[in-house]
Amino acid sequence: MRVIKISTLREKALKLHEENQGKLGVYSKVSIKTKEDLALAYSPGVAEPCKEIYQDPSLIYRYTGKGNTVAVVTDGSAVLGLGNIGPKAALPVMEGKCILFKEFAGIDAIPICLDTQDVEEIIQAVKLISPGLGGINLEDISSPRCIEIEERLKQELDIPVFHDDQHGTAVVTLAALINYCRLLKRDIRNLKIVISGMGAAGTSIAKLLRLYGAKTIYGTNAQGIISKSKYHRYNSAVQKLLDDGIVDDFEITEDSLAEVVKNTDCFIGVSVANILTVDMINSMNDDPIILAMANPNPEIPYEEALKSKAAIIGTGRSDYPNQINNVLAFPGIFRGALDAKSYKITDEMKIVASEAIAYLIKDEELRRDYIIPSPFDSRVVKAVSNAVYQKAKELKVCRE
Amino acid sequence: MRVIKISTLREKALKLHEENQGKLGVYSKVSIKTKEDLALAYSPGVAEPCKEIYQDPSLIYRYTGKGNTVAVVTDGSAVLGLGNIGPKAALPVMEGKCILFKEFAGIDAIPICLDTQDVEEIIQAVKLISPGLGGINLEDISSPRCIEIEERLKQELDIPVFHDDQHGTAVVTLAALINYCRLLKRDIRNLKIVISGMGAAGTSIAKLLRLYGAKTIYGTNAQGIISKSKYHRYNSAVQKLLDDGIVDDFEITEDSLAEVVKNTDCFIGVSVANILTVDMINSMNDDPIILAMANPNPEIPYEEALKSKAAIIGTGRSDYPNQINNVLAFPGIFRGALDAKSYKITDEMKIVASEAIAYLIKDEELRRDYIIPSPFDSRVVKAVSNAVYQKAKELKVCRE
Repeated sequence: MRVIKISTLREKALKLHEENQGKLGVYSKVSIKTKEDLALAYSPGVAEPCKEIYQDPSLIYRYTGKGNTVAVVTDGSAVLGLGNIGPKAALPVMEGKCILFKEFAGIDAIPICLDTQDVEEIIQAVKLISPGLGGINLEDISSPRCIEIEERLKQELDIPVFHDDQHGTAVVTLAALINYCRLLKRDIRNLKIVISGMGAAGTSIAKLLRLYGAKTIYGTNAQGIISKSKYHRYNSAVQKLLDDGIVDDFEITEDSLAEVVKNTDCFIGVSVANILTVDMINSMNDDPIILAMANPNPEIPYEEALKSKAAIIGTGRSDYPNQINNVLAFPGIFRGALDAKSYKITDEMKIVASEAIAYLIKDEELRRDYIIPSPFDSRVVKAVSNAVYQKAKELKVCRE
Repeated sequence: MRVIKISTLREKALKLHEENQGKLGVYSKVSIKTKEDLALAYSPGVAEPCKEIYQDPSLIYRYTGKGNTVAVVTDGSAVLGLGNIGPKAALPVMEGKCILFKEFAGIDAIPICLDTQDVEEIIQAVKLISPGLGGINLEDISSPRCIEIEERLKQELDIPVFHDDQHGTAVVTLAALINYCRLLKRDIRNLKIVISGMGAAGTSIAKLLRLYGAKTIYGTNAQGIISKSKYHRYNSAVQKLLDDGIVDDFEITEDSLAEVVKNTDCFIGVSVANILTVDMINSMNDDPIILAMANPNPEIPYEEALKSKAAIIGTGRSDYPNQINNVLAFPGIFRGALDAKSYKITDEMKIVASEAIAYLIKDEELRRDYIIPSPFDSRVVKAVSNAVYQKAKELKVCRE
């Protein structure tokens, strides 16, 4: 596998963006070459679908692109690993996300970069632009604001709202753990799990693993191991992690990552580069799984992790095996939800998405360096969207 | 010229909208087939243009689609002739407008249907979504709210804001009058003009004709002839028409359209069907021009007007000569403004757009049934955009 050199990557990436003046365009699905074309697609013919939708608003899904249109919405407060670079500097990422929606799932996604970082204004803006949209993908909004924004929008809108930084990573992480259990003959209920980084992604991962049966989940953040003994020092978001049982209490003897990973089975990193060592991994239980997903540099360099007793290593990078890549999840999840005419994306729909990703790899194909399918495996989006579609129908959360 | 029957048109229009699930799609300008593609267009390569834009926000125009992206924004309060049908029922029109932007001017336009009809909320929503947009086309927002919304957004944003229902019609109307003067050897300063309908379009037409030198402009609205004698009965919007000298005072003897059109040269209708008669036209000065633009049925049926002494007849319809069609104006106006990197669209830019449309028809080509070029004349958008581009540069209202 060829690793692109950073200098080359930088130059190539800038060239690609400049030459194309961005990455996203729109096109007309209908011909506009004659007066008759114009009379049908625009005035006066366009009045006909307008009148139909005015009589029955649900017909907006029949006569317009609403049902296949998703807004990729950001405030630019937590863009990639770059931090709070603002809505303008976030646009290349949003355009990128939009083309992934299109290329992987045929969804017409449009980037919306909001000129505010106020929670109420973000919620208000998304609600105001929602009539023409079939779904909302929140992107690169900092934690814990993103959690409140998503929760509120889910309550107040009747279209799917999904914060991919939270749930996309969680869905693929659960898929990885499912296949770890299959390959190593483990039961997720018995795994001792450590999540490094309790931001948007870490919180959602903990919630989803808990729902899937995981009994032991410890968390760490910039303040160290999350523990009831420090409860009074936490902000309300971290307190809620303990209150809601999203992470377990840890009785701290020494407040370090080294301490908490001892005798555990699973390290999930959604934090920062180079905080995990070979010694730490070797202090874990036998055959542990290490998902070191900090980007671009993982919690432990892949080559280092290889020297440890880790049974399985996954990263967020495309140049190593077992890439935990959101693109395995969000295109199929939205495709399934839109096709099912679902009002929302539920936890149950996320879980069947994880299972669909995991079970695409047959028992006999599973290997330590192949527990996650390639993002370019075209079966993924179909498997995920079918599973999500079926689950939405089963849950009766659909318009029809 | 073939006239589409209404029943057929209705069926065909609904079929077209349903078969295509709307009219607008998005596409990726770059290939996403390999890991390297993904690494350049998305993570990690996409971080490079983000960092550049963070350092210098003006580079958003170099590395993204902002500079070629226009939002077509409505609140659904005045859609076509259908009235206040709301944002959902307005979506087919907004999609239609977007494909016209694309097909006629290569502009990537996206529809935004707002779930509010509150002036402040509309202004707020448009400002909040503006960072990723190169321009705002306001559409089908009722008068006089549309005038305030446009004014405020022009003041508060540094990208072109244009309410097409006001100015698009005005630009093409001025083009028609320019060619009427050329063909009939008249001087616009000496024309006596009546505008029937002083909503968004009528107000903008009056302003633009005034700027271009017209000395006599009378207006009528649902309350009859606009006159200082009724000043105290008007709302502030109509009072402003008189205060600002947008329309002239008319000393009323009999408050009827018949009264005001007598001895005038030019009837401009942006009002309702069938209010003008052959007798009224025959009471005008010799060789008058009748622009009866109510849609779909003009202020006087075309065939009726032919029986009068009108020298020139224009309508808003594609099935008669001299169609006053906004599509002659807005694509080129935006193309020129975006290419010039203009902060705004000024009155001067509108006037050169009118002249460009008019003078596309050479002296020897001008005929009574050909004072306005066809919307499918591919020279139009080039001529208009060049003129607007040059004027923007001349006025120094551009970023570079």
